[in-house]
Amino acid sequence: MSIKVGILGYGNLGRGIECAVKQNDDMELVAVFTRRDPATVTIQTEGVTVANVSDVEKYTDKIDVMILCGGSATDLPEQTPEYAKLFNVVDSFDTHARIPEHFANVDAAAKESGKVAIISVGWDPGLFSLARIYGNAILPQGNDYTFWGKGVSQGHSDAIRRVEGVKDAKQYTIPVDAALDAVRSGSNPTLTTREKHTRECFVVLEEGADAAKVEAEIKNMPNYFADYDTTVHFISEDELKANHSGIPHGGFVIRTGKTGWDEQNNNIIEYSLKLDSNPEFTTSVLIAYARAAYRLNKEGANGCKSVFDIAPAYLSPKSGEELRKEML
Amino acid sequence: MSIKVGILGYGNLGRGIECAVKQNDDMELVAVFTRRDPATVTIQTEGVTVANVSDVEKYTDKIDVMILCGGSATDLPEQTPEYAKLFNVVDSFDTHARIPEHFANVDAAAKESGKVAIISVGWDPGLFSLARIYGNAILPQGNDYTFWGKGVSQGHSDAIRRVEGVKDAKQYTIPVDAALDAVRSGSNPTLTTREKHTRECFVVLEEGADAAKVEAEIKNMPNYFADYDTTVHFISEDELKANHSGIPHGGFVIRTGKTGWDEQNNNIIEYSLKLDSNPEFTTSVLIAYARAAYRLNKEGANGCKSVFDIAPAYLSPKSGEELRKEML
Repeated sequence: MSIKVGILGYGNLGRGIECAVKQNDDMELVAVFTRRDPATVTIQTEGVTVANVSDVEKYTDKIDVMILCGGSATDLPEQTPEYAKLFNVVDSFDTHARIPEHFANVDAAAKESGKVAIISVGWDPGLFSLARIYGNAILPQGNDYTFWGKGVSQGHSDAIRRVEGVKDAKQYTIPVDAALDAVRSGSNPTLTTREKHTRECFVVLEEGADAAKVEAEIKNMPNYFADYDTTVHFISEDELKANHSGIPHGGFVIRTGKTGWDEQNNNIIEYSLKLDSNPEFTTSVLIAYARAAYRLNKEGANGCKSVFDIAPAYLSPKSGEELRKEML
Repeated sequence: MSIKVGILGYGNLGRGIECAVKQNDDMELVAVFTRRDPATVTIQTEGVTVANVSDVEKYTDKIDVMILCGGSATDLPEQTPEYAKLFNVVDSFDTHARIPEHFANVDAAAKESGKVAIISVGWDPGLFSLARIYGNAILPQGNDYTFWGKGVSQGHSDAIRRVEGVKDAKQYTIPVDAALDAVRSGSNPTLTTREKHTRECFVVLEEGADAAKVEAEIKNMPNYFADYDTTVHFISEDELKANHSGIPHGGFVIRTGKTGWDEQNNNIIEYSLKLDSNPEFTTSVLIAYARAAYRLNKEGANGCKSVFDIAPAYLSPKSGEELRKEML
């Protein structure tokens, strides 16, 4: 009997969930919910319903886990508590500073409904958070380093697009090799923002726009670019489409720590991701945690959880016996 | 109130536990148990009892978790079930093929006593197993690659020492960079034993021994060396002591997997360790899982568990609130 999955929101994440469900034999997609007119939304999976989000309550006994694919800025703070009243839910809430507040809201809703909600699932927060908690628990005397990229930052690309004279743009965040090497050497360097990452921008100008003025405005933009070494390339719309339409990303979490009676030995734990598709990978993580949400709820658990609260065995379709035999 | 730890067996692992307890403020070392005459064993922590293992039953209400620091070949298969009758226990049982049998024996004992036993804790099995289970759950369409080294293999060093004419020896297992690069490229290569690792041996000869004969015997040794490209260096006893007395190790677990509707995108998860001290790092992992064993038992859990069954939050001294705020 497969786990019945619903998707709420059909953007990059919703489409990624659809692909991830296809790869997991114990999962079945039941319906996609959209705020748009369902007749205007075409999905890839044959025979699956597209419904308006206003009809979601009709599906409470047809769906085991609802994957919430909205954005963190305005969608998820409302949606996750709301739908945790009806379903086991998983979200990818990634506004780090607001996680405690989001957790409290979702926990109250999920405890009342008796459902399981797992929030902030993906790779950061998510797998990178796991690398941090394992690294800190094992090497308590040490330092954490997180690097992002090489990858496309949606927020920075959007910021460039808001500059006058810019028609379209893509921004790559790139970790600095020398900084990575310094961390891996065990020297525990203190690194500035500028030393850790560079930013590379590919910009299509509006006709007649002043390239020098656009470049200066990008490079001096506070928060987004002013603290970084930024490179701006002006390219044609065709070139942007041909060479920069992917959504790759990745990064590194490194924990360095001392062991020994006199803390004389260095040890380095490194976790890294290199992803051709950021949303497809993120949703692959969401689907594994959807399996956990379903199972935990079956066992009687309820309330809000994060990746920290989920034993790894819950993520795998294999039994405890199989896991110990094949993977331990 | 700190977690009261006992150490059973005072070799490299026992000494490592002692160092790890010192680094963790919520831990306290209560006693070290040895099969030797306690008067002959000097430990580093002031004011801590060294007792004979025959007195262990007197400590059942003084110790929260007993860390079993024996070997996997003959000690742990007997010790872990035996001491799980008296204490929460953690071991580093690493004979992969015998884990199912060991688990069953320990589980029966720990269920009867109402204690928690966590087996096969360390980095492989242990953290590398975690990298495998997370990687497989997230990228179900993919391949696993594990590389070990650069590091000292105790088993291979011992095998060399058994060759006639060898006075002492150290063997390093070294992953082949070209193989690592091929895996990281996402090409999903099929790699032979010879392509993945090389073996480098530093050998001190007995006086009058035949170097050519020793070298040939090492290189042709079945299972240990015959399937590898092996290099043998003959060095003096002083040089061995000066340059090869450390116990470094490490390795890489890489999961490569496809995502997308047509599985058109590659994604690579890499987990790696670079350790100056294999036993000190292993025991740092054991101590984090000792914390989990204690807490789980406090909550009423019992029976045998592996790293797959432990939610990451149990490893950290921080509260759920702190973890979500600082590490998620």
